[in-house]
Amino acid sequence: MSAQPVADPTTDATVATESTVSTVSTVDRTVGVTAPLGFRAAGVAAGIKASGAADLALVVNDGPSDTAAGVFTENKVKAAPVLWSQQVLRQRRLRAVVLNSGGANACTGPEGFQDAHATAEKVAEALGVGAIDVAVCSTGLIGERLPMAAVLSGVDGAVAALGGDAGAGLAAATAIMTTDTRPKQAALRHPSGWTVGGMGKGSGMMAPSLATMLVVLTTDAVVEPETADAALRAATRVTFDRLDIDGSMSTNDTVLLLASGASGVVAAPDELAAALTSVSADLAGQMRADAEGGTKEITITVTGAASDADALTVARWVARDSLVKTALFGSDPNWGRIAAAAGAAPAELDPDTLDVTINGVLLCRGGAKAAERAEADLSGREVDVHIELGIGGGSATVLTSDLSHGYVEENSAYSS
Amino acid sequence: MSAQPVADPTTDATVATESTVSTVSTVDRTVGVTAPLGFRAAGVAAGIKASGAADLALVVNDGPSDTAAGVFTENKVKAAPVLWSQQVLRQRRLRAVVLNSGGANACTGPEGFQDAHATAEKVAEALGVGAIDVAVCSTGLIGERLPMAAVLSGVDGAVAALGGDAGAGLAAATAIMTTDTRPKQAALRHPSGWTVGGMGKGSGMMAPSLATMLVVLTTDAVVEPETADAALRAATRVTFDRLDIDGSMSTNDTVLLLASGASGVVAAPDELAAALTSVSADLAGQMRADAEGGTKEITITVTGAASDADALTVARWVARDSLVKTALFGSDPNWGRIAAAAGAAPAELDPDTLDVTINGVLLCRGGAKAAERAEADLSGREVDVHIELGIGGGSATVLTSDLSHGYVEENSAYSS
Repeated sequence: MSAQPVADPTTDATVATESTVSTVSTVDRTVGVTAPLGFRAAGVAAGIKASGAADLALVVNDGPSDTAAGVFTENKVKAAPVLWSQQVLRQRRLRAVVLNSGGANACTGPEGFQDAHATAEKVAEALGVGAIDVAVCSTGLIGERLPMAAVLSGVDGAVAALGGDAGAGLAAATAIMTTDTRPKQAALRHPSGWTVGGMGKGSGMMAPSLATMLVVLTTDAVVEPETADAALRAATRVTFDRLDIDGSMSTNDTVLLLASGASGVVAAPDELAAALTSVSADLAGQMRADAEGGTKEITITVTGAASDADALTVARWVARDSLVKTALFGSDPNWGRIAAAAGAAPAELDPDTLDVTINGVLLCRGGAKAAERAEADLSGREVDVHIELGIGGGSATVLTSDLSHGYVEENSAYSS
Repeated sequence: MSAQPVADPTTDATVATESTVSTVSTVDRTVGVTAPLGFRAAGVAAGIKASGAADLALVVNDGPSDTAAGVFTENKVKAAPVLWSQQVLRQRRLRAVVLNSGGANACTGPEGFQDAHATAEKVAEALGVGAIDVAVCSTGLIGERLPMAAVLSGVDGAVAALGGDAGAGLAAATAIMTTDTRPKQAALRHPSGWTVGGMGKGSGMMAPSLATMLVVLTTDAVVEPETADAALRAATRVTFDRLDIDGSMSTNDTVLLLASGASGVVAAPDELAAALTSVSADLAGQMRADAEGGTKEITITVTGAASDADALTVARWVARDSLVKTALFGSDPNWGRIAAAAGAAPAELDPDTLDVTINGVLLCRGGAKAAERAEADLSGREVDVHIELGIGGGSATVLTSDLSHGYVEENSAYSS
């Protein structure tokens, strides 16, 4: 698994065109949810956002299968569309997902739940399926009702605009953007003959669980519901769940997987999980690169922990520490703050066996200075922090960004 | 207990002069560690800071008693002076505390511990006591050795400058400042005839436990070591431990209590705890007001929780949430982010009984909007957030500040 950008489509020979993807197992960012067979998508401007930008997306699974799985926020305050989608996903089947930006429909009471239901009902009616076959995702400001007239007429527009080509997938990926500066898509064609595609949004509030991250993954593999569920959980656990920008956890986080079976090829469970992980890791990397105000792409790797869980705890503690994040924004390899953040984590740690390496330079060995800070070069955008605890064999990696003036600016001026 | 500023000394008639304190139980900020009988203090420029500012302080307990207690950081990465002071405090007696700014002496290995020991030894020699009677506190950059020649000659200067008046106490409070913009002192005279005084530093890295906060409390009450320890723990638990600026936890946090017994009056345990709490709350309030880059003084109160522990967990989660803190910096009463942060806390919470009130305006009732955000006025410096969980009788209050451009600026530019 790698969250690094692969194959810049403008320069790489394996670039895909239209609805095809490259025939090697390389993640392709020029296509998304419509890369696998059996899917159509659309993105339209429904008038939910005051700006008039695209704000409503639809992804339809034309089958023959309608297997689906989902992973949702663990926040106890869940948005109405999350409550709705969790409910309909109990049957592990979906024919469509409708997504809107411009409003989270969270903390909106029973009326908000009615709005989510009405949106699903409207989609179902247009597609000739049941409301129980339609998941709903929303993102935007918490605490305000959605402008339902705009949402419902937007559904009509989206159904009319549905298409199976790459342009339709891109339109959907664009319509779910909030503070994102770029649409986020990825796809991977497996040598066995099936494909995984996906789109996501999230450039802030991405956190311990999956905060305001909306992701729709699609595949044309033939998959049993139990396999789909297990593969999706395995993929999110090491990708979206390891992306921790500001430690906040949204009320709306949702990652959905829809499987059409249109390739006619049964995917081996471990191969499906691996492909979902590759696409998810790529989307997570795109989200980190587009983090609100971020100027650094930071990878925190902890090794030598008493357990993988301990390693993850230490990595998260360091990733969320405001003093570490501001130091890295200032390109200061301040390993002392990293050591202090690690030592504050509720995990086993011995200061005498603690090593900290930043961008390849061992700055702290055995809990004390090993080299001058100036030897680590942080002038670039990528920062690799490696913390060796010297206790056991546990390891984990977390992706984050820095805490910049831009972060403060966006989040103090923008109500989301 | 109140962390609010009391009696502006420039306008209040109860203002104290020199080494006396007002005779009512009002906290007085014009005096500090030398307010109780039996204490001398000094603050000098030892040359540890490159700026040439005062950087070494000494507080001496002339007795007759030498009872002492301490509370230290819970970070597993502890600075050398913390390890030293924890060790000498096992006997629950101290004759002096030497404190320096300009360097944390943390992550400095066995050599750093030797430096702390040598500093205590130097103080002990000058005062004619044992090194085991001397605690050491340091604050500043992690990972660098202290310039010991400067520290040791600074001790000589401090011993020569020792005085029992208010000016000497102020000099000590000034010498421990790092990014603080003001020295922080407080004192309270108990009607029974004994006094508590104190000084503190900390305007950043103040956190779950007590991060880089150095506090010395003094009293001339006659106190048994066990009583001193219990009273200090009770006071810090509801004051310094409830101040959470950025969620970070320092390697150097130390709160010490020295009791001279010079008043000849035995303090009742609960009265001593109450007085220590008042002085500590006042110092904590001063620290919040001086938080790095802070433009708001935020009080988060959680009521109706299943337990006090749950209330504290929710209050801390909200206090540390970057999205909440940036919204409040922008004077945006964004209760949705507060609800989301509360819902993410590992505590019992029912979104349907969640109320959020900001500066007296009930904005969210039963987990949904109760009033327009604009009705809450956040134009002033003080922000009161009240979260009612509607579950049980648990409550807790946490003090914090906002996340501003100033915070990012100070912490990205200043290596501490």
